[in-house]
Amino acid sequence: MSHKPLPGFRDFYPDQFAERAHIFDTWRRIVRRYAFQEYDGPPLEPLELYTQKSGDEIVTQLYNFVDKGERPVAMRPEMTPTFARMVGARAQALRKPVRWFSLPQLFRYERTQKGRLREHFQLNVDIVGEADVMTDAELVSVAIEIMRAFGLTHTDVRARVSDRRLLNGLLEHLAIAEPTWPAVYAVLDKLERQPREVSAEKLAEAGIAGDTAEVILGFTSLDFATVQARYGDAPAVKPHLDRFAQYLAHCDALGVGAWMRFDLTIVRGLAYYTGIVFELFDNVGEFRAICGGGRYDNLLKSLGGTDLPALGFGMGDVVIGELLRSRGLLQVSATPPAYWVAQSPDAPDAPAAALRTASALRSAECIVEYALKSQKLDKQLEAGRKAGAGAFVIVDPSSADAPWRIRRAGHDDQTFFTLEALTAWASSHSGTPA
Amino acid sequence: MSHKPLPGFRDFYPDQFAERAHIFDTWRRIVRRYAFQEYDGPPLEPLELYTQKSGDEIVTQLYNFVDKGERPVAMRPEMTPTFARMVGARAQALRKPVRWFSLPQLFRYERTQKGRLREHFQLNVDIVGEADVMTDAELVSVAIEIMRAFGLTHTDVRARVSDRRLLNGLLEHLAIAEPTWPAVYAVLDKLERQPREVSAEKLAEAGIAGDTAEVILGFTSLDFATVQARYGDAPAVKPHLDRFAQYLAHCDALGVGAWMRFDLTIVRGLAYYTGIVFELFDNVGEFRAICGGGRYDNLLKSLGGTDLPALGFGMGDVVIGELLRSRGLLQVSATPPAYWVAQSPDAPDAPAAALRTASALRSAECIVEYALKSQKLDKQLEAGRKAGAGAFVIVDPSSADAPWRIRRAGHDDQTFFTLEALTAWASSHSGTPA
Repeated sequence: MSHKPLPGFRDFYPDQFAERAHIFDTWRRIVRRYAFQEYDGPPLEPLELYTQKSGDEIVTQLYNFVDKGERPVAMRPEMTPTFARMVGARAQALRKPVRWFSLPQLFRYERTQKGRLREHFQLNVDIVGEADVMTDAELVSVAIEIMRAFGLTHTDVRARVSDRRLLNGLLEHLAIAEPTWPAVYAVLDKLERQPREVSAEKLAEAGIAGDTAEVILGFTSLDFATVQARYGDAPAVKPHLDRFAQYLAHCDALGVGAWMRFDLTIVRGLAYYTGIVFELFDNVGEFRAICGGGRYDNLLKSLGGTDLPALGFGMGDVVIGELLRSRGLLQVSATPPAYWVAQSPDAPDAPAAALRTASALRSAECIVEYALKSQKLDKQLEAGRKAGAGAFVIVDPSSADAPWRIRRAGHDDQTFFTLEALTAWASSHSGTPA
Repeated sequence: MSHKPLPGFRDFYPDQFAERAHIFDTWRRIVRRYAFQEYDGPPLEPLELYTQKSGDEIVTQLYNFVDKGERPVAMRPEMTPTFARMVGARAQALRKPVRWFSLPQLFRYERTQKGRLREHFQLNVDIVGEADVMTDAELVSVAIEIMRAFGLTHTDVRARVSDRRLLNGLLEHLAIAEPTWPAVYAVLDKLERQPREVSAEKLAEAGIAGDTAEVILGFTSLDFATVQARYGDAPAVKPHLDRFAQYLAHCDALGVGAWMRFDLTIVRGLAYYTGIVFELFDNVGEFRAICGGGRYDNLLKSLGGTDLPALGFGMGDVVIGELLRSRGLLQVSATPPAYWVAQSPDAPDAPAAALRTASALRSAECIVEYALKSQKLDKQLEAGRKAGAGAFVIVDPSSADAPWRIRRAGHDDQTFFTLEALTAWASSHSGTPA
């Protein structure tokens, strides 16, 4: 038998699982404060759920097959189609706005390379049923508060934010015809990563040259105040500037203003965004996007017939894990036992006394381990040390004056005359599992 | 788009997710006290990982396919092969005994029927590296303590326990040849569910008739004391009786003795068990087995070349969920917001004040929601009531004497002059998320 998982798939040994649990726990802790409720769907769905949204090209990236009932199926590559399906099925009955989150494992058959796996876990946070810009502020602030909860600050991470409607307004103001917009999006999306000449060339191919091309190539360095000053009177732009200003004010009130960076090059690859879009990046530019999302008001209708405004983001476990690790903020490992129960092995009733002790401590919510066979005391203590036990409980039922003693490094032994006294002390002195 | 998941797959809407989370949380809480550490592996594995353990017949029940790299793969139908693979890969380095647990989702293409799904979640708890019977007692007591944590008692659930070695000793003592044992196992496994004549006929087919057949057919009603009295002097049986008596004594010391029921008909379907085996059942006999497991000392060697004794159990989420629901012990639902922040909408700075308030309360770990747009106060309060909010925080920045007030059903309004005073009160009066 091979001892390896499939390429691009991860084994989570307890120490790696502890890292993953730290990420999951932080996600849940913050998102719940925002009154989002957790849901989940199947990791296997009908193939058409994905082709309907993304076209047939996506199939080359899927783990898809035909099941034993002749159904074309695929392991879920993203959560949004399942989310749309579930909301669509109960669209009438659900209280609006719907505020849901999920932590699905997602699967893509991609070329494996450093940091590119074929599975990852992705926090999905979505709001359905509210078009007001306050909702956009609420959404991005969840993502930023998660960064804060991980110990990151706005000097580590920034939220790059744009608005599709504002961008469209600018293109309209620049007299660029709508059929050309997708070509402009594609250039903006790569503006930072490809040479300026290449971008200029692509714009020229799309029929945009001269001053207009210069303006677009200058979008990288425009801050919001400059756009306001320059285009504030343009009728195609003004309502979108006003809305975006309100958005930024809401973000300020929510305490995340310092993290926000206006950036017209954030268009998001996916075709379905319709309003404010954002991506979180580390400030050094060392990693891929930590998180991305935005408003997709037309998607639910196109997928499920439910015409409701919606917005959401996804945050994978891989990039945030790499970032936290590189900053020394992921120093967690599997939890060792709080108590190691050792028995004085000469007494014939020692095993039973040890088991009763372990059971009582566990009922008091302590994490307890012991040697699962009779051994000399020295051997038991050595095993407890190897396990990283926080303290020893030494049980000697033959001792009339001190049947229980607690031994901790750096402390004198502490003796107990009853099991109740021991468990009372232990439960007030040891952390219960997180 | 169809709004349904694939047949046999579940959508977990927030209320259903809350039930699942209650089961998962209870599993984790108890298993961690026993110092088990959580791990996970990929939900997709090489097909041979499963055929190697269970033979090619298992393929008819698998979600298997050939991936885009021409690899035969399968969605995991059980966790033990992944567990064996992972332990095998680090067999030398891992501290023994290995005490691990996992909560994988498992997949089988089975005929769907009531209570039979094509996916379920299964708690897997395993110990590797210790042969002493104290380990067997530790394992079953985890399963029973989980029942207790769910609010069940030994009048609701019993652990039916047997020992493959003891059973083999009895068959040897009855002069039944070893090649015939599997046929006897098969009869015992069905003894309770098929007519006595059918069982007798199957035994006769295996060459067992007369008194010997009668003895085996009588195994259903034998308690442990009777077996001890009847076979205590038989050399093929005695060592196994002694070991089993020790096992029961350990279970007593661990506080789970009252749940144990000796039962020679528990052989467990899977061929690989080698020692003590157990299954948990509701006492009414209304549901399928809640949980099953036992000692499988030869499996790791046969799968991974690691010759270590091992034992474990699996407990699915479906049967325990049905049992708890039928007993009124699964009355959980999605958590509503603790506070609904409402703004006095006449003041121009009210939205910002409300957002600052929500943000401060969330920083104090309260679950907070608010209307994501400006609305009349009545409308806001109505929305908060629909959301099931525990209390309202009404923000009126124009009020000099009481900018914040908390309104709870059955209480007078409580007023606050600073945001700090409000959050201090709120964080001490509202539950933080579990």
